[in-house]
Amino acid sequence: MAKALRVGIGGLGTVGASVVRILHEKANTLACHCGRPIEVVAVSARDKNRDRGIDLSHVKWFDSPVQMASSNEIDVFVELIGGELDVAYASVEAALKAGHHVVTANKALLARHGVALATHAEEKGVFLNFEAAVAGGIPVIKVMRESLSSNHVSRIYGILNGTCNYILTRMFTEGLSFKDCLADAQKLGYAEADPIFDIEGHDTAHKLALLTSLAFGTVISLDDVYVEGISNISQVDIRAADKLGYRIKLLGVALKTDTGIEQRVHPAMVPTSSVIAQIHGVTNALAIQSDLLGELLFSGPGAGGAATASAVIGDLADIAKAHPGFQCGSVLGRPALALTPYEKACIATHAGGYFIRLSVHDRAGVFATVAKHMADHDISLESIVQRSFVEGQIGGTKTIILVTHETTEANIQQALARIAEDGHLVARSRFIRIERMT
Amino acid sequence: MAKALRVGIGGLGTVGASVVRILHEKANTLACHCGRPIEVVAVSARDKNRDRGIDLSHVKWFDSPVQMASSNEIDVFVELIGGELDVAYASVEAALKAGHHVVTANKALLARHGVALATHAEEKGVFLNFEAAVAGGIPVIKVMRESLSSNHVSRIYGILNGTCNYILTRMFTEGLSFKDCLADAQKLGYAEADPIFDIEGHDTAHKLALLTSLAFGTVISLDDVYVEGISNISQVDIRAADKLGYRIKLLGVALKTDTGIEQRVHPAMVPTSSVIAQIHGVTNALAIQSDLLGELLFSGPGAGGAATASAVIGDLADIAKAHPGFQCGSVLGRPALALTPYEKACIATHAGGYFIRLSVHDRAGVFATVAKHMADHDISLESIVQRSFVEGQIGGTKTIILVTHETTEANIQQALARIAEDGHLVARSRFIRIERMT
Repeated sequence: MAKALRVGIGGLGTVGASVVRILHEKANTLACHCGRPIEVVAVSARDKNRDRGIDLSHVKWFDSPVQMASSNEIDVFVELIGGELDVAYASVEAALKAGHHVVTANKALLARHGVALATHAEEKGVFLNFEAAVAGGIPVIKVMRESLSSNHVSRIYGILNGTCNYILTRMFTEGLSFKDCLADAQKLGYAEADPIFDIEGHDTAHKLALLTSLAFGTVISLDDVYVEGISNISQVDIRAADKLGYRIKLLGVALKTDTGIEQRVHPAMVPTSSVIAQIHGVTNALAIQSDLLGELLFSGPGAGGAATASAVIGDLADIAKAHPGFQCGSVLGRPALALTPYEKACIATHAGGYFIRLSVHDRAGVFATVAKHMADHDISLESIVQRSFVEGQIGGTKTIILVTHETTEANIQQALARIAEDGHLVARSRFIRIERMT
Repeated sequence: MAKALRVGIGGLGTVGASVVRILHEKANTLACHCGRPIEVVAVSARDKNRDRGIDLSHVKWFDSPVQMASSNEIDVFVELIGGELDVAYASVEAALKAGHHVVTANKALLARHGVALATHAEEKGVFLNFEAAVAGGIPVIKVMRESLSSNHVSRIYGILNGTCNYILTRMFTEGLSFKDCLADAQKLGYAEADPIFDIEGHDTAHKLALLTSLAFGTVISLDDVYVEGISNISQVDIRAADKLGYRIKLLGVALKTDTGIEQRVHPAMVPTSSVIAQIHGVTNALAIQSDLLGELLFSGPGAGGAATASAVIGDLADIAKAHPGFQCGSVLGRPALALTPYEKACIATHAGGYFIRLSVHDRAGVFATVAKHMADHDISLESIVQRSFVEGQIGGTKTIILVTHETTEANIQQALARIAEDGHLVARSRFIRIERMT
């Protein structure tokens, strides 16, 4: 059998420890699959003495991941350092400089520096694999990078954050408030102590930025993602959506429009009968629409030590099989230098249906005024619900729910501004975009 | 840019013509993606003069696909001959013998000769890619072969035949009979003039046999697949299933049990709330359950010229990128010689819930007798429905629907045999297996 692929792992948290454990437990299967063994020969983490339940006795310890990454004792550097962007960047750069392959699960690193690192990897002719950076154990990167080469992608959309989907699922099934669900998710380890990055949509935005580049062959453009989280979603929205035939999901969406590429992360109404509406709990899903395939959809575990480790090991196996003498191909599906500039379509030009919730004073003429402003802005209404199923009315106020036909975000914003000026609202108006499914 | 990958295509039906057209239309994108052009240099088909809407003026015509397959003018032989197993086999074998890579969409060829051909390809160090053979445009082969290397798969199940799913979907949504749906599917080109291969489950069985080998590392064992089609499914079954919270789908299922591997193709009850129940029309879907990932699910187009061509071109792109100097890896996820023997679990030992439909004489004591035979065979009942929602009663007869808790197929068969012996039945009893979803 050929020489072992020598792996150095930076970062031994849940994922890192799982990678070490699984590579050991499944050594024979993997060697059979790859035609050569994959061996962890070096590790680096913050605390040398922590008990991680894995045997590191035959593995060289490095205090510095950067030093390990550039050591000639390894063939591949696995970057699982995460959070600390400086250290992660420095160690990945050091590995590439030394001509080592890199596997990383670091979406933040790639969303910020992906194109530069890809350029670097391609110059050196080494792999920079990042399956674990998006949608955990679902092999969406491989599929987009390798299987869809002849497809012209028009839109991608998906549930890319398990924490948010868990919260929204429980809000729906158990009628709990956002706050209570979040607290529970934190207790159960599905949400971080500081949940902002997840619940405000930033985690989804990082992942979406990478997928957008793969989908459209553009440079990664994180700062152009429109981001809105789920902390404003209430039981009123969820119940009204249900009655109208929708579920609310936090989606990441990227599509080509006449004015450019729209990248957006926000709570969206999806039809109850759609597959994406059936994605429950911490599960992730991604749909890809293209000319040759219509719609492909993948769902699976978006996080967790074992699932993420599975993705990391899939990346390592690709390297083990290819090595040596392989042209490593493009990190982002086409050569980094051939990626085209990102042309942004503003959220104001977004076209779609809208779910609008207005809390208004219960007095004569309010609805007529609302209807007039809608008509003035060319917005036609599909459904109008006053009071009927809405809970939580405050004395002297009522809730109006409107569902619009396709219109633009600019029209909606202007109409709502006019409605607000009239002084009928008792609270800020809310709207949720409806994502069309075909 | 590196030398072009020279492709010879055998078979110019819908898929073959689509491959030629798309490789031409997307030549630049593909060359950018692969780092080299992919060029069709030779073709072979039955009728040289048929107008296929594609330009073949710069392409060499071979009257014999076998001769083309072994010609040194090509690097890859694409086998899209289909049906004629002898010609397909001979040409693939000739290509491998000549040291050419092979891409094929031929499930029947691989289900019968896959291991032998894989052995041959691996000896020669060439690719034998077959993404298009299963689930059309959904890259299930790539994912199972490359991404799941560290996973221990416990079960796969899926909708692998678009014709059947189209018929079952329309039977559900429009209340049509099986016969009428089939006739319509034939009119619309979703079903063949001779539909037996599709509707009796054989197409699904071929695909399942390949997936089973990839899932469990066993030799391909088509003859061990238990096969049952959808031609006996009636509106009574579909309506009863709906009321009980189920949809009926033709599934291919393979799982590991204590006695061996169960491979089965049959109509199955799946919970209405499951993702697989939302797969409508000609769409295919595959779920893979494994130790590290829980459940992965893919859905997308299972057939059609463009979708199948997309899979073929994905396979070609992998070859274009790898070539030259690459170790081609294993055709079936592990070396053909390392595949383990298939150990069959008989359908009689299948454990699960059952939906049973009995047409009985409407007289006293019938139900008591039925209930006794069930109890005698240790079968406990979850639901019992007499008459209530069942249409189509014939004078003096009634329909009894039973849903059982988990039991074995042997118990069900024996209980139904006893019930038949009692002379209460006016028609053969029917049962549909319930597929558990977690």
